Amino acid sequence: MSDLRRDPIVGRWIIVDTDHPKAPTDYKAVETHSPLGGHCPFCYGNEMDTPFEIDSIRDPQTQSNTPGWQVRVVSNKYPALRIEGNLDRKGIGIYDMSNGIGAHEVLVETPYHHKDITELLDEEAEKIIQMYLNRSQDLVRDKRFKYVMIFKNYGPAAGASVEHPHTQIIALPMVPKNVLDEIHGAERYFEFHERCIFCDIIRQEKEEKERIVLENDDFLAFCPFISRFPFEIWIAPKEHHSHFSHLPKQAIGSLAMILKQTISATKKLFGNISYNYIIHTSPENSETGNAGYHWHIEFIPKLMRVAGFEWGSGFYLVPTPPELAAKYLKTQ
Amino acid sequence: MSDLRRDPIVGRWIIVDTDHPKAPTDYKAVETHSPLGGHCPFCYGNEMDTPFEIDSIRDPQTQSNTPGWQVRVVSNKYPALRIEGNLDRKGIGIYDMSNGIGAHEVLVETPYHHKDITELLDEEAEKIIQMYLNRSQDLVRDKRFKYVMIFKNYGPAAGASVEHPHTQIIALPMVPKNVLDEIHGAERYFEFHERCIFCDIIRQEKEEKERIVLENDDFLAFCPFISRFPFEIWIAPKEHHSHFSHLPKQAIGSLAMILKQTISATKKLFGNISYNYIIHTSPENSETGNAGYHWHIEFIPKLMRVAGFEWGSGFYLVPTPPELAAKYLKTQ
Repeated sequence: MSDLRRDPIVGRWIIVDTDHPKAPTDYKAVETHSPLGGHCPFCYGNEMDTPFEIDSIRDPQTQSNTPGWQVRVVSNKYPALRIEGNLDRKGIGIYDMSNGIGAHEVLVETPYHHKDITELLDEEAEKIIQMYLNRSQDLVRDKRFKYVMIFKNYGPAAGASVEHPHTQIIALPMVPKNVLDEIHGAERYFEFHERCIFCDIIRQEKEEKERIVLENDDFLAFCPFISRFPFEIWIAPKEHHSHFSHLPKQAIGSLAMILKQTISATKKLFGNISYNYIIHTSPENSETGNAGYHWHIEFIPKLMRVAGFEWGSGFYLVPTPPELAAKYLKTQ
Repeated sequence: MSDLRRDPIVGRWIIVDTDHPKAPTDYKAVETHSPLGGHCPFCYGNEMDTPFEIDSIRDPQTQSNTPGWQVRVVSNKYPALRIEGNLDRKGIGIYDMSNGIGAHEVLVETPYHHKDITELLDEEAEKIIQMYLNRSQDLVRDKRFKYVMIFKNYGPAAGASVEHPHTQIIALPMVPKNVLDEIHGAERYFEFHERCIFCDIIRQEKEEKERIVLENDDFLAFCPFISRFPFEIWIAPKEHHSHFSHLPKQAIGSLAMILKQTISATKKLFGNISYNYIIHTSPENSETGNAGYHWHIEFIPKLMRVAGFEWGSGFYLVPTPPELAAKYLKTQ
């Protein structure tokens, strides 16, 4: 028999196979990958092969677009959105349209082509988070932008088209639908309970303990009760914070640590698999989501392909219960 | 520059690359596949290798669970849900749970292991649709079920674990979230306009013509203005019909034809690629969605992997505008 579990934030139902749960070794078809190398525009020394540098953390005596950097942000060479121009919205019959205003940046996480965050020193990993924060804070100063999305695709199965470890940053003139669904759900809960639903989830997870993977002073990493994917992990600040862009400086180190440890635990179980993570945060330049929404990172190892059922229905089938996933991850 | 387009049903934004649109030949990495063969429980003569037959279309002088069938429905050997028992819902802290009541069936579309719908005779394809209808009508008689989901995963990239062409049918005790979002969006539109939003979409597509792929007496196949995936195609009845399970008998043939032709046109462009389709319909045993919702099929060829951005945000990046996709498909 399986459990049906309902996400209290957005109302989504998940089918969890508690009857014949899959162990990590049952994900036989998981694609791991070895770095290929070859010429890479993101590598140290190839700074002129990318669009101009937007920001970097680098040795003070070195210049933009030259070596000397540890983390580097450039415009996406093939941007989905462009920063120039005014937002122009119009209707075409029953459809709404807008021109593609926004920012699309690439954050090169390390000079080393072959080093994912799990192989970086702690202070190197911290610089990635520091730069996430710098870019968020810079982009939200542009009042046209309502949302800054920070996400990483690592490995071919996760949709990464460049191998060198990098994160994408997109600033959008509107709040994406899935985020809006979460925010509306969280607001409805807040209106009734006058409490943040994520704070309540964190409280319950800390009481029940069985889904917790890692914890430090500032953050909790856990396999959510309503995971959509096997071995999905959320990393959330233990205190209520609505916006990632308000991250206090002293929490940068603990966030970098727990993110690195989370990915390391997953790689110890599954090898060098593809994964995605995305920072979910409150809208910017808006009054929405400040009280009820709680920023967090959603981390998904690519163990399965999403098939017709899931994308069509929003009804997910999870072959490993999160309680079991957390148990496997904790022993790594 | 790209267009941003907003889905008028659920409010989702799509980024369409109108600046450097991808042609079919640009989807180089598309996985095509050749059938492998081998022992198959769905093949003609192996009827005893599956769970018992629930229904079939077969020669009248033959018996269940023996050869003689053209289309055959069995229980899923590894069901996500089970049909026995009462629905038992409870709360665990802030979470909602239910036992996994439902039906999970597999419809074997043809005795031939190597024949997808595109290679079947018209009367063979019709039998598949006839059986979709039979199973829908039978399952909705069980008042516990609120939704019948019919979907096909074809090919490994679409999540098919068995090669032999088959469709899955799931009856659920609740309406899945994505469907509910569509229904609520359609109802809001209906309340204001007193018109079905899908009827309005169909009217606009017929006027603008450029996104239409195929049309017959009863159905329209078109690349929707707000496609989430390149070469996505919707097949909808031209007249307003809320439930697939109410499909009139005389429309079975024209639905089978347009579905077969749609998939054929896609395969002519891309070879034997993986694809998914799913029938979106109104909830059953409920008053919801009768006036405002319009059943349809969403067909998605697997040309891209969905990466972090899409699943995290519900914000899709479409490299081929639907106008262009329809143009390519029409010339096949």
